[in-house]
Amino acid sequence: MARSDREFLVGLNLIPQLTPVRTKRLFARFDTFGAIWNASGAALASVVGSPVVGEAIASGRSETAIDEEFARADELGVQIVTLVDEAYPALLREIDDPPMVLYVRGSLPIDPARSIGIVGTRRGTRYGKMVAGRFASQLALKGMTIISGLAAGIDTAAHQGTLDVGGRTVAVLGCGIDYPYPKRNQPLLANLVENGVALSEYPLGTRPAKWTFPQRNRILAGLSRGVIVVQAPERSGSLITARLALEQGREVFAVPGNITTMTSAGTNRLIKFGAKLVDSIDDVLVEFPDLWERQRTAAEPEEEKEPDLGEREQQVYDLIGLEPVHVDDIIARADLSPTEASHVLLLLQLEDLIDEVEGGRFVRKP
Amino acid sequence: MARSDREFLVGLNLIPQLTPVRTKRLFARFDTFGAIWNASGAALASVVGSPVVGEAIASGRSETAIDEEFARADELGVQIVTLVDEAYPALLREIDDPPMVLYVRGSLPIDPARSIGIVGTRRGTRYGKMVAGRFASQLALKGMTIISGLAAGIDTAAHQGTLDVGGRTVAVLGCGIDYPYPKRNQPLLANLVENGVALSEYPLGTRPAKWTFPQRNRILAGLSRGVIVVQAPERSGSLITARLALEQGREVFAVPGNITTMTSAGTNRLIKFGAKLVDSIDDVLVEFPDLWERQRTAAEPEEEKEPDLGEREQQVYDLIGLEPVHVDDIIARADLSPTEASHVLLLLQLEDLIDEVEGGRFVRKP
Repeated sequence: MARSDREFLVGLNLIPQLTPVRTKRLFARFDTFGAIWNASGAALASVVGSPVVGEAIASGRSETAIDEEFARADELGVQIVTLVDEAYPALLREIDDPPMVLYVRGSLPIDPARSIGIVGTRRGTRYGKMVAGRFASQLALKGMTIISGLAAGIDTAAHQGTLDVGGRTVAVLGCGIDYPYPKRNQPLLANLVENGVALSEYPLGTRPAKWTFPQRNRILAGLSRGVIVVQAPERSGSLITARLALEQGREVFAVPGNITTMTSAGTNRLIKFGAKLVDSIDDVLVEFPDLWERQRTAAEPEEEKEPDLGEREQQVYDLIGLEPVHVDDIIARADLSPTEASHVLLLLQLEDLIDEVEGGRFVRKP
Repeated sequence: MARSDREFLVGLNLIPQLTPVRTKRLFARFDTFGAIWNASGAALASVVGSPVVGEAIASGRSETAIDEEFARADELGVQIVTLVDEAYPALLREIDDPPMVLYVRGSLPIDPARSIGIVGTRRGTRYGKMVAGRFASQLALKGMTIISGLAAGIDTAAHQGTLDVGGRTVAVLGCGIDYPYPKRNQPLLANLVENGVALSEYPLGTRPAKWTFPQRNRILAGLSRGVIVVQAPERSGSLITARLALEQGREVFAVPGNITTMTSAGTNRLIKFGAKLVDSIDDVLVEFPDLWERQRTAAEPEEEKEPDLGEREQQVYDLIGLEPVHVDDIIARADLSPTEASHVLLLLQLEDLIDEVEGGRFVRKP
């Protein structure tokens, strides 16, 4: 009876009706997970707003099930990490509806400063898989951890590209950690957990279902500082991941592709809407200035270079020095609308006078 | 001796040292083209800032050459249109350094409201040429005039795509209008002038040279409301056209392509810098609201749809109604930085709640 919060969380997570959002609401009302565990069906119902769901939660609680789940995890060599544990991934804790429980194979922690998601359609073309694999390898060589979803196509290429260079990769599953799905990727999964991590929020034995994949995507985005969508058709789970990443305040990157290829329609659309186009990993790394050492050479005073600029161009150019200036500051200081400013910045970049050095920050070219 | 301005302009344009920029400066000083024609070498030198150039201009003037040029044009069936003529294209007159003279085959005018440039590399791939041809056909069917440069590759596909649907296309040449370059495209040129226009600012017989193409590109951009760059490697004349278009305040559109294709590196870069990604002609047409009839159905009051949005999303969503609102106004009214605003707008688009209806303007989806 002297259950820990860990045990209550695992027990609550075994109840299908108890989504992370509902648990969060219940926790706000009952203050402890133990109190949720012991609340009456009526009390639960009043918080979740449905007598049926309240009753289902109440009757779904099972002490035996908790003990059995821990025993099974032990047997399988699966680590159980709950929201109250130190080992819970820091970035994932920040999202609106963090999983209560993670079933983990391989080794935590997942470095929150170095996690990048690489996702895309199961129907990735040769081009898409090649880009996913290449980006994964290159980012892994820079010390990044590659997060993906173990699905066929782009995800597989991302995991494999990481493993090819001995990198660390994380697979977020849409089924129980012990459920062999996708079947074809079980050897990949086995390799991956040697040096990386596989995890799932679902109780052991959970089969994949249509709704588990979008749920899984929020964890994938939640573990990542930014997500690269490599290839996606107009309707794709990867676009859901992109949306979730945005909602969580994470960066979204998209790889462009030929407009005649269906599998690039979604990524091109993301870019059209404002996601950052990436054609090299530098476009990704530049967004995380904490990851790079500024290589600035002591600036020798040079011959004055006086480019021949229009009035607005000159005004913006004058605002940009050797220290990065953010576009928002440029807009605030110049007497320009954001639209005009981005127009002028595009022009100055084409004239090779300025460089974007990190997200929305510009420096003068020496 | 009673020369017209037309004749003076043609005479001045025959002098190689007399660039449009210098002529403009001289005109500002001398007030009439006749006065430039009759000015002393020293007076010319003091304005252009070089005794050598002043003298070259003075000694380059030839009355005979003017008469011969008009006679040759007549013989060839070439129309001569100068800056002072009614027939001079209105959009082109707006640029900083409009050509003094246009040698024209085919039929003016070029509808300033309906001119779109389609350009790209001579080394266009099958993909690039297919897209150029398709966009040209589709835009021509919407009544647009397609401006391009008669070069091999993308330009050829753009002209041909227009002709295939009986559309009107304009070829801007980088050599004299009578100089058969590129040789392979002479049959295309002959077809094109049946229903369209070919033009050049160069005196009759001028051979193409390295420097004539960038000069030509300013005319191409100057004639266009917007320019679509279909395919371009990192260093490409098409990117010069894009830069010139921006300098002239024209829209720049770019077609994305696989990042593994060299010939899409330049267009992907344009998009990365802020050019608008196009994957359908609607992306182009939407920027010119005067070209489309708003199809708004009388809005029946509907069931309230209350999307579940974050605070910032809700704030922005509330600002967007059925009338298009410009992003700059959204930024001004919401308490958001431009970067935050574009992030939120991307999210609302992904959630299918708003639509971009024209450049930077958003409406709520009904």
